[in-house]
Amino acid sequence: MAKDKLTFCVFGAGRIGKLHARNVAAHPQARVKYIVDPVSKAAAELAQQIGARTASDPAMALADPEIDAVVVASSTNTHVDLITASARMGKAVLCEKPIDLDIKRVNRCLADLKKHRVPVAIGFNRRFDPTNRALQAAIRKGEVGDVELVVITSRDPGPPPLEYIKVSGGLFRDMMIHDFDLARWLLGEEPVEVVAKASCRVDPKIGKAGDIDTAMVILKTRSGSLCHINNSRRATYGYDQRVEVFGSKGMVRSDNLRPTAILKSNDTTTEARDVLMHFFIERYQQSYLNELNDFIDAVLAKRKPSVGAEDGRRALLLANAAVESHRTGKTVTIK
Amino acid sequence: MAKDKLTFCVFGAGRIGKLHARNVAAHPQARVKYIVDPVSKAAAELAQQIGARTASDPAMALADPEIDAVVVASSTNTHVDLITASARMGKAVLCEKPIDLDIKRVNRCLADLKKHRVPVAIGFNRRFDPTNRALQAAIRKGEVGDVELVVITSRDPGPPPLEYIKVSGGLFRDMMIHDFDLARWLLGEEPVEVVAKASCRVDPKIGKAGDIDTAMVILKTRSGSLCHINNSRRATYGYDQRVEVFGSKGMVRSDNLRPTAILKSNDTTTEARDVLMHFFIERYQQSYLNELNDFIDAVLAKRKPSVGAEDGRRALLLANAAVESHRTGKTVTIK
Amino acid sequence: MAKDKLTFCVFGAGRIGKLHARNVAAHPQARVKYIVDPVSKAAAELAQQIGARTASDPAMALADPEIDAVVVASSTNTHVDLITASARMGKAVLCEKPIDLDIKRVNRCLADLKKHRVPVAIGFNRRFDPTNRALQAAIRKGEVGDVELVVITSRDPGPPPLEYIKVSGGLFRDMMIHDFDLARWLLGEEPVEVVAKASCRVDPKIGKAGDIDTAMVILKTRSGSLCHINNSRRATYGYDQRVEVFGSKGMVRSDNLRPTAILKSNDTTTEARDVLMHFFIERYQQSYLNELNDFIDAVLAKRKPSVGAEDGRRALLLANAAVESHRTGKTVTIK
Amino acid sequence: MAKDKLTFCVFGAGRIGKLHARNVAAHPQARVKYIVDPVSKAAAELAQQIGARTASDPAMALADPEIDAVVVASSTNTHVDLITASARMGKAVLCEKPIDLDIKRVNRCLADLKKHRVPVAIGFNRRFDPTNRALQAAIRKGEVGDVELVVITSRDPGPPPLEYIKVSGGLFRDMMIHDFDLARWLLGEEPVEVVAKASCRVDPKIGKAGDIDTAMVILKTRSGSLCHINNSRRATYGYDQRVEVFGSKGMVRSDNLRPTAILKSNDTTTEARDVLMHFFIERYQQSYLNELNDFIDAVLAKRKPSVGAEDGRRALLLANAAVESHRTGKTVTIK
Repeated sequence: MAKDKLTFCVFGAGRIGKLHARNVAAHPQARVKYIVDPVSKAAAELAQQIGARTASDPAMALADPEIDAVVVASSTNTHVDLITASARMGKAVLCEKPIDLDIKRVNRCLADLKKHRVPVAIGFNRRFDPTNRALQAAIRKGEVGDVELVVITSRDPGPPPLEYIKVSGGLFRDMMIHDFDLARWLLGEEPVEVVAKASCRVDPKIGKAGDIDTAMVILKTRSGSLCHINNSRRATYGYDQRVEVFGSKGMVRSDNLRPTAILKSNDTTTEARDVLMHFFIERYQQSYLNELNDFIDAVLAKRKPSVGAEDGRRALLLANAAVESHRTGKTVTIK
Repeated sequence: MAKDKLTFCVFGAGRIGKLHARNVAAHPQARVKYIVDPVSKAAAELAQQIGARTASDPAMALADPEIDAVVVASSTNTHVDLITASARMGKAVLCEKPIDLDIKRVNRCLADLKKHRVPVAIGFNRRFDPTNRALQAAIRKGEVGDVELVVITSRDPGPPPLEYIKVSGGLFRDMMIHDFDLARWLLGEEPVEVVAKASCRVDPKIGKAGDIDTAMVILKTRSGSLCHINNSRRATYGYDQRVEVFGSKGMVRSDNLRPTAILKSNDTTTEARDVLMHFFIERYQQSYLNELNDFIDAVLAKRKPSVGAEDGRRALLLANAAVESHRTGKTVTIK
Repeated sequence: MAKDKLTFCVFGAGRIGKLHARNVAAHPQARVKYIVDPVSKAAAELAQQIGARTASDPAMALADPEIDAVVVASSTNTHVDLITASARMGKAVLCEKPIDLDIKRVNRCLADLKKHRVPVAIGFNRRFDPTNRALQAAIRKGEVGDVELVVITSRDPGPPPLEYIKVSGGLFRDMMIHDFDLARWLLGEEPVEVVAKASCRVDPKIGKAGDIDTAMVILKTRSGSLCHINNSRRATYGYDQRVEVFGSKGMVRSDNLRPTAILKSNDTTTEARDVLMHFFIERYQQSYLNELNDFIDAVLAKRKPSVGAEDGRRALLLANAAVESHRTGKTVTIK
Repeated sequence: MAKDKLTFCVFGAGRIGKLHARNVAAHPQARVKYIVDPVSKAAAELAQQIGARTASDPAMALADPEIDAVVVASSTNTHVDLITASARMGKAVLCEKPIDLDIKRVNRCLADLKKHRVPVAIGFNRRFDPTNRALQAAIRKGEVGDVELVVITSRDPGPPPLEYIKVSGGLFRDMMIHDFDLARWLLGEEPVEVVAKASCRVDPKIGKAGDIDTAMVILKTRSGSLCHINNSRRATYGYDQRVEVFGSKGMVRSDNLRPTAILKSNDTTTEARDVLMHFFIERYQQSYLNELNDFIDAVLAKRKPSVGAEDGRRALLLANAAVESHRTGKTVTIK
C-alpha cells in the first residue's frame, strides 16, 4: 500500500527551523517526530510546542526507520554533512539554501547524492510564491514572447546582526543567491556571463567585516537575454520584492504585497498604500507552505522535487562569479 | 479550571455550513462533534471529512452536555428556532445572517434571548476582513476626522440560482444587508433615513420572481453623515468589493483584493492587474476565520461577541426600510 | 469666402472671464476685440494683457458688426439678458453655466433663442475633458455594454467665500449642476426620478446662509439605469473628481489627475502619489480649451455646438428636483 | 534697455527641427527669423508654416545681426561646425544631443567655446520633464537621504529605420545617452566606473548593421552609489520611461504618463490603464517647452543654461565607456 503520510526529522530550531517544523506539523500528510539542535533548550521548546520529541544527535534520529524525510534548517556549515548522512540512510531531504558556501564541498555533496537516490529539495522558496508563479506561468504560456530583459529588485528592511553577516558568506552568497535562482528560473536558460558592482553604504561595520550591503549585477545568457539584480540590506519602507520580465510580446511584472488593500489621503499625502509585508517570514509565508507541499508530494509520488541540488549548485556558481567580478572588475564566464 | 476548547454542533451542511464546519474543525481551540442537516447524505459526508458524527435532529445534538456552542448555517427560515432552542439549552450561538426575514420574528427572538444569557454572534463576516478592519481602525484613530460620506460598492460576479432568489427575501435583505451592517459600523452612528432606487437589469427572470438586481441606496444619520451603497447581481470582471470613507480630515478607501500582485502589459493592454478574488468564499476567507476566532474568544473569555443579535436586527430594519422606500419613492425614517 | 477666424467680445473679467479671454486670445482662429465688465479697472487690465479694448456697455460691443461671437462669463444674474441681447444681434454665444437659477427665466430664454438662430453653447466644460471623453467613447463603443450604474464623485478642495455661496443658488444648482450634466451625458438617457439627501458638515456658516455643503443624490432613468453623485465643499487632499460607469459588459472608471507621475515611499508611507491638480482651473485646463475649440469649430462650420442651451435647462431641472427632494424627502419626477 | 525677446535661426527642418521651430515661434519671448536646411523644400514648408523665411546657408543667417540665438537640430555630423560658427558670431546656442559622436571633436569644440563666451545649452530635455524634476527636487530636499541605487528603464516603442541606426553612433551613444545624462543628474556625482552588456534581440538587421538593440549598464560613482540602466529598441506596450531613486531614507520613483486616467475592467482584464504616451514627441512635449524656457531665460538673464556643453561631453564619455565595456567585458574607468 502506498504511503500517504511522511514522518519528519527537523534539524535546526532557530527562526527558519521553527517555521519549517510548524509547517510540517500542521500539514495533513506529515508529522514531525524529532527536532534536533545542539542548543537543546531551543530543540526542547520547539518539540514541545508541536508535539514532537528531541533527539540528542542527528545519527540517532536518522537511525529511526520511521523517519521518511528530513528538513535541514541548521547552520550552513552543517548542511553538507546532514544531507549526506540523511541520504545515506535513505531519507528524503529538504535543505535550506545554500547547500554550502564552498563550491568544492557542494560538488562533492552532489557526487555523493548520485550514489543515494533520495529526493533532495533546496529551499529556494520564492519559486513557490503565488505571484512569482503567476509570472513564470505567463512566460511559459508565451505572454511575454521571448524573454529579453529581467529586472529583479530585492531589498531587505534592515541588515541582519553583524555576527550573522560574518559567517554568511557575504551578500552575494547569502542574500542575492535567492535572486540568482529566480533569475535562472525566469530566464529559462543558464546565465553564462556575470558582472557585479557593489559597495558598503548602509553600515560601515559591514564593510569592516569584509562584506558589502549594496549591490548590482548583470547576467547574460548564451542567447543574449539580460538580467539585472539589485540588492540593499536596508529599505526604510520595508521588504521590497519586485520582479519585471520583458520580452518580444510584452511585459509581466510584480508589485509588492501588502497586508490590506487600503489607500489613505489627507492634507499631506494622497493614495498612500498599506505598508509592505514585514520580511520574508510574512512575505513568503505561502511560498514556504507551497514548497513543503511540493516536497511532500514529490516524495509520496516518487518524483523529483521541483527545485533540486543542481539548482543549489548553479545559484552558488553565480554568486561566486559575482564575488569574483566585484573583486576584479571583469566579466566572469560560467561554463 | 477555565475551559480552553469548545465543542461545536454545526447546523447546515450546505456551502456555508461546510465552510464553518471546516474552520471549526481546524481551529486549535475547537472541535466539531455533530453535523446536523435534513439532507442526511450531505451531513454524513461533511461529518466524515472532518471527523465528526451526525445527529438525526437538532434536539438530540443540543441535549448533549458536551456541546458548548452551535453554528447556525442552515436555511434562513430555520434560524430563529435553532437560535432559540440552542439558547434555551445554554449553548453559545454563531448564526449566519439574516436572523430571519420577518422583523417580528426577529424581535421575538431577541426578546427570548434576553431570558437565556448565552453569547450570540451574527455572521456579518465583513467586519472581520483585515482590509475593512484597517479602514475602521483608521476612522477610530481619527485619521479621517468626522465621517461625512461613506460609499460602499458591492457587486456579485453573477446572480444566484432563481430558486435561491425566490426564497432570499430579495436583494435588500439578502445581499445589501451585509453593506447595511458595514455602513452602521463605519458610520459609527445609526442611520435614521433611508432612500432606495432599484431596477431589474441583469436578468428579467429575477424581475418576474419579484426581485430587483441593481440597486442604489442613501442612508442619513442624525448628525447628517451620508452613506451610499450600490449593488449589482452581476459584474463581468468579478466580485467587486470596495469601501470609501471620507471625512473632515481626509479619506480612507479600500481596493479589491487579488490572488497575486502581477501586472501585464502588451500591445493591447497596459498594466492590467490580476483578476479579482472569485467570490465571497475566497474574498472573505480570512474574515470567516477571524469571525470564528472572535466568537470562540468571546465564549471562552465570557465576553459578548463583537457582532450580536441587535446588529442583525438593525441591519434588517435598514433592509426593510430600503424595500419600502423602493416601493413608495419616499424617505423611510428609522426610529 | 468662408470665414476662418472669429472676433469675440468677452463679458466678465473675473476669474472665469480671464480664463476664457486668454484662451480666446491665444486661439489661432479667434481674437478678442472687447472686454466688458462693470468693474472697469478689471476690464481694462484684462484687455491690456491680451491686446483687446474695453467697451463701456454690452450694447456698444454688440453693435459692432465685427463681433462674431461672445463669451458670457459675467455674474449669473446677467446671463439671460446677455444671451438674448447677443442672439438678437446675431452673435454666437458661449455662456458659462448656469443659464440662470430660475427655470422660468431659462425657459423664456430658450423660447427667445428659437427666434434667433444663433449657435449657443453652455460651458459644461467637463464633457470636453480628455479623461471624461475617453470614458464616454468607451461607453459609445459598447465596452461597458448597457450602462446600469454610474457613480460620480466630485469634491472641492475648499468652500468658496460665503458671499459667493449666498448668491450661488445653492450647492445643487451651483456645484452639482456639472455632475448632473455629466450624468445625463454618460447615461445616454434622461433621468426621470431624483432623490437627494444633504447636510451642512463643513462649515455651519454655510448652513446659516441657507445652503448645504455635503450631498448625495440618486438619479433613475426610464430604462432603470441608476446614477449616484456625491459632493462635498471640502476635501483636505484636494479636488477629487472621479467617475465610474458600470454596465452589462464591464466597467470603465477614471482616477484623478496629478501634475506628475512620482511615487514616494519612506519609513512612514508607501507609494504615496503626487498631490491632485489643485482646482478646476488646473484640472480642467484642457477641457476649457477643447470646449472653446468645439465652439469655434461649430460656429465656423455652421453646426450646433456639442453642448447647448437645452443641456443647460435639463441640468437645472435636475438641480431643482434635488433641491425639492432634499426639502420634502420624496422622489421628484422629471417629465 | 534690456532685451526682452530673442530672434532665432533654426538649423534643421526634420522632425526635431520642426518641434523646436514651432516651440520657438509660439514662445512669447522669441521669434524665428530663419529656417536653414539643405533640403530646401523642407525648410521652405516649415518657414511658411511658422511665418519665418529660409536662408540658403548657415553663414548667411549667422551674419544677420538681428539673430540672437540658434537651435541646432540638424544631422549630428553638422553639430560641431554649427556650434562653433554660431559661437564665433556671438549667437547663443541650443544644440540637440549629441554634440558629436567623436569625443575628440567634442573636446575641440569645447575648447573653442571657451574663446567665445556665448551661452550653450545641450538638449537633454528629460531633465526638464515635470516628473523627472519632481524626482530630482525630492532628492535635493533630502527625501531619499543619500542616493544609493538608481534604476532607469528606457524602452522605445519600436526601432528607428535601419538607415538612421547606421549613422546613429549606436544604441549607447544615440539612445542611452539620454539615460546617462539623467543618471549623472540624479546621482549628483560623476560615475567613475562603467560596465555594459548588450545583444541584438529585436531585429537581426540591427546586428548586421553593427549595432545592438537590447542593453544593460551599471554605473558606479566614487562614493559607491550604483546606477542601472536598461534599454530596448522595442516595447510592444509603448514608450516605457521609468526612473527609481533609492537611498538611505526612502525611495522616489516615477511611473509612465498616459493621455487619460481611465481604468477598464471586463471579463478578460481588470483595471487596465490607458496606453502610454506614444513616443518622445508626446511624452516629453512639456520637457521641450521647459527646456526652451530655460534657454531663453538664461540668455535674457545672462546666466548659464541649466544643461551645458560639458554635460554633453560627460554623457558621451559614459556612452563611449559602455561601448568599450560591451566590447571587452571589462569595467571601464572614467577619470
